[in-house]
Amino acid sequence: MNASEFRRRGKEMVDYVADYLEGIEGRPVYPDVEPGYLRPLIPTAAPQEPEAFEDIINDIEKIIMPGVTHWHSPYFFAYFPTASSYPAMLADMLCGAIGCIGFSWAASPACTELETVMMDWLGKMLQLPEAFLAGKAGEGGGVIQGSASEATLVALLAARTKVIRQLQAQSPELTQAAIMEKLVAYSSDQAHSSVERAGLIGGVKLKAIPSDGKFAMRASALQEALEQDKAAGLIPFFVVATLGTTSCCSFDNLLEVGPISELRVTHLSSKCTGKKEDMWLHIDAAYAGSAFICPEFRHLLNGVEFADSFNFNPHKWLLVNFDCSAMWVKKRTDLTGAFKLDPVYLKHSHQDSGLITDYRHWQIPLGRRFRSLKMWFVFRMYGVKGLQAYIRKGSNQLNEALLQRINSAKKIHLVPCHLRDKIVLRFAVCARTVESAHVQFAWEHIKELAGDVLRVEKE
Amino acid sequence: MNASEFRRRGKEMVDYVADYLEGIEGRPVYPDVEPGYLRPLIPTAAPQEPEAFEDIINDIEKIIMPGVTHWHSPYFFAYFPTASSYPAMLADMLCGAIGCIGFSWAASPACTELETVMMDWLGKMLQLPEAFLAGKAGEGGGVIQGSASEATLVALLAARTKVIRQLQAQSPELTQAAIMEKLVAYSSDQAHSSVERAGLIGGVKLKAIPSDGKFAMRASALQEALEQDKAAGLIPFFVVATLGTTSCCSFDNLLEVGPISELRVTHLSSKCTGKKEDMWLHIDAAYAGSAFICPEFRHLLNGVEFADSFNFNPHKWLLVNFDCSAMWVKKRTDLTGAFKLDPVYLKHSHQDSGLITDYRHWQIPLGRRFRSLKMWFVFRMYGVKGLQAYIRKGSNQLNEALLQRINSAKKIHLVPCHLRDKIVLRFAVCARTVESAHVQFAWEHIKELAGDVLRVEKE
Repeated sequence: MNASEFRRRGKEMVDYVADYLEGIEGRPVYPDVEPGYLRPLIPTAAPQEPEAFEDIINDIEKIIMPGVTHWHSPYFFAYFPTASSYPAMLADMLCGAIGCIGFSWAASPACTELETVMMDWLGKMLQLPEAFLAGKAGEGGGVIQGSASEATLVALLAARTKVIRQLQAQSPELTQAAIMEKLVAYSSDQAHSSVERAGLIGGVKLKAIPSDGKFAMRASALQEALEQDKAAGLIPFFVVATLGTTSCCSFDNLLEVGPISELRVTHLSSKCTGKKEDMWLHIDAAYAGSAFICPEFRHLLNGVEFADSFNFNPHKWLLVNFDCSAMWVKKRTDLTGAFKLDPVYLKHSHQDSGLITDYRHWQIPLGRRFRSLKMWFVFRMYGVKGLQAYIRKGSNQLNEALLQRINSAKKIHLVPCHLRDKIVLRFAVCARTVESAHVQFAWEHIKELAGDVLRVEKE
Repeated sequence: MNASEFRRRGKEMVDYVADYLEGIEGRPVYPDVEPGYLRPLIPTAAPQEPEAFEDIINDIEKIIMPGVTHWHSPYFFAYFPTASSYPAMLADMLCGAIGCIGFSWAASPACTELETVMMDWLGKMLQLPEAFLAGKAGEGGGVIQGSASEATLVALLAARTKVIRQLQAQSPELTQAAIMEKLVAYSSDQAHSSVERAGLIGGVKLKAIPSDGKFAMRASALQEALEQDKAAGLIPFFVVATLGTTSCCSFDNLLEVGPISELRVTHLSSKCTGKKEDMWLHIDAAYAGSAFICPEFRHLLNGVEFADSFNFNPHKWLLVNFDCSAMWVKKRTDLTGAFKLDPVYLKHSHQDSGLITDYRHWQIPLGRRFRSLKMWFVFRMYGVKGLQAYIRKGSNQLNEALLQRINSAKKIHLVPCHLRDKIVLRFAVCARTVESAHVQFAWEHIKELAGDVLRVEKE
């Protein structure tokens, strides 16, 4: 396929993509196939001679689509959302064309620098503490990981290296294995399975702290485990706090847990209080983190100032297509110190200048795509206000319109209230004679009118 | 941006991509920028209001392209090749539109099943032993990793889990840490830095075996290290053999190293020979592996039958855009057993049927894109013959044309020979009076004519 055929086929593919997304509501959200459905539909080996593009395109509807679970169908409510927007798709086309492997600054300066700046933009949207931003000469900064699993693993490995070096500096006779045997990491019993997996991969114990009645990790339960483990000679070194758990979107109590685990103040303050623990605090906000760009949700992130690393997934809920998992650290040397290997074939003249970022030291793989283009396109084409509106989705205007319809229809009667900036429709059960059937009737009626309001909004 | 604007902008982007790749030869391959060039060109924070698409597109040439190292320029000879083809780009557009996160079979059956079948297709192209193929009910199979670094790490972690379980089964009193302290992995001193990094992440020792005069790892050197380490009470458990090293594309001697490290025959044969070691053999052919699809290069892979896992990067040299790192194992349970965690929110009804593959157990991240679409498009649009021709690039016809030009020009005289299927131009130094200057003259003349032949071929 040469450039001129690509021009033709590429435009056909753009239309196919737009048709697919415009018509996705009409496709069954979950495929009706049994395991092994695909193999009999496909030859047992690759063709020797080239095939025509038409044949491949026709097979998409025949072979692929019947087996696709449509994550972007409005009827898809499983697992978690994954972001999809047209600007991100356009950026990904450009990313594919440039096709650079940005493992170091020199491997494509624009790839590294746009990522650093975009992570600063996003950090500012979240009002992250200054220490997490790269700025011109900051010690911290952000990196795009492929997934929150990798972010957690990278944080755990950096913390492991750090504690091993600290303890060996104090007691040079200690072997790495002797230390690792005693290391313990902690997370809520509601934490994502990838946290347990990071412990398995890192070869350290991970303890699940029982969450409270609201499925939140609290200081008291964590402190209890810490005391027990220290009494048993173990070495606590790493805590993951989850903001927005997978099962029920509960939030660990960061304002309680943060001060316990803050690492950097330990040596200063432990003498005074005896309470600080020498632990790395990682915050996993993969699922809920996008909401923090709205000022009214930002308080849920309070306590982030105690963390060493923070992660959330714009590829879940911020319109940046997978993969784009945003991770920040306060001290970039904690990551680069844990992983840095510098074979001569990857060296370049600027790398020791202190001016540049080589992202290969921040992540598990070596290679990396130009993923910040997606962020750039999305942030600019939506603007912060557009992104906030997407997170909020509903608006006061919609609620007002619904109330107006309800009261015009005169089948039921409601009055609204204001809760801070929100217009809320109050449904008070008032008359002595109200039965369950009346409430059911009212609810069906409200649902019908709400559907009308949303249809009008969409048109 | 709605679907209709995407149709328009998407088609403009297709043209931009085609223009970029058609004109890439005219761009400076390495950017003329200093570290920090980009930040002053970009606002310090994301815009509050949406911007126009034109503004973003214009900024690509103003801000991004001046900082791009053009990996697909024909003047790019740094690092290693990274694949780029139009069919793969079309497939990636479709992948972005479907946007599924295929961590389990149920999360999108087509995503999992096409990957399994494509890895079988590719395995057959390489003539991999049957044990590496999934087939309908095989114990082995392939998976697409993001990078060879991840493949090596996954193999090392699986081997680590396996040996720890084996030793604990024999001696239940042994702790994981006590075993890990003694584990040693091996690779050539020419192995890629990601192998050393996998050792660091996995918390095990990695020893570099001195390579021979051809930069190859040989059995004798490996055996020597093994004897020393075993005498010191260490436990060898993992060997990486490299086929095509990064620095000079040297090949470890697989036919020597393979039999030493074959794992599965150990318990059967160690009684007889006392020579087999209980080690996992991983083959890293990231760089050179694509060549094995040509029968004339396949012998370089001989010995793969001794390996537990094998990896190479179609995203380097097989026209499948990054990321697509192909990894096969003989026993899938070695991987899934090392990583399997099954939280209820990821369970599905088919998972215990034994019929399905949940790729999340085969890799470090949880999420994964529909990357097999790229393989499917590329394999079908090129055909095996087209891919082989791309690896070979030159052809007998080109050599014949060059010879004809040389002998027509009559400034020098050559005769050809056949080496098996290849037409080779023999350059024999014949006359008593030949000086270095004559050879230099001949070489310049041949280069000029060869350039003419290639220009004609291109037009």
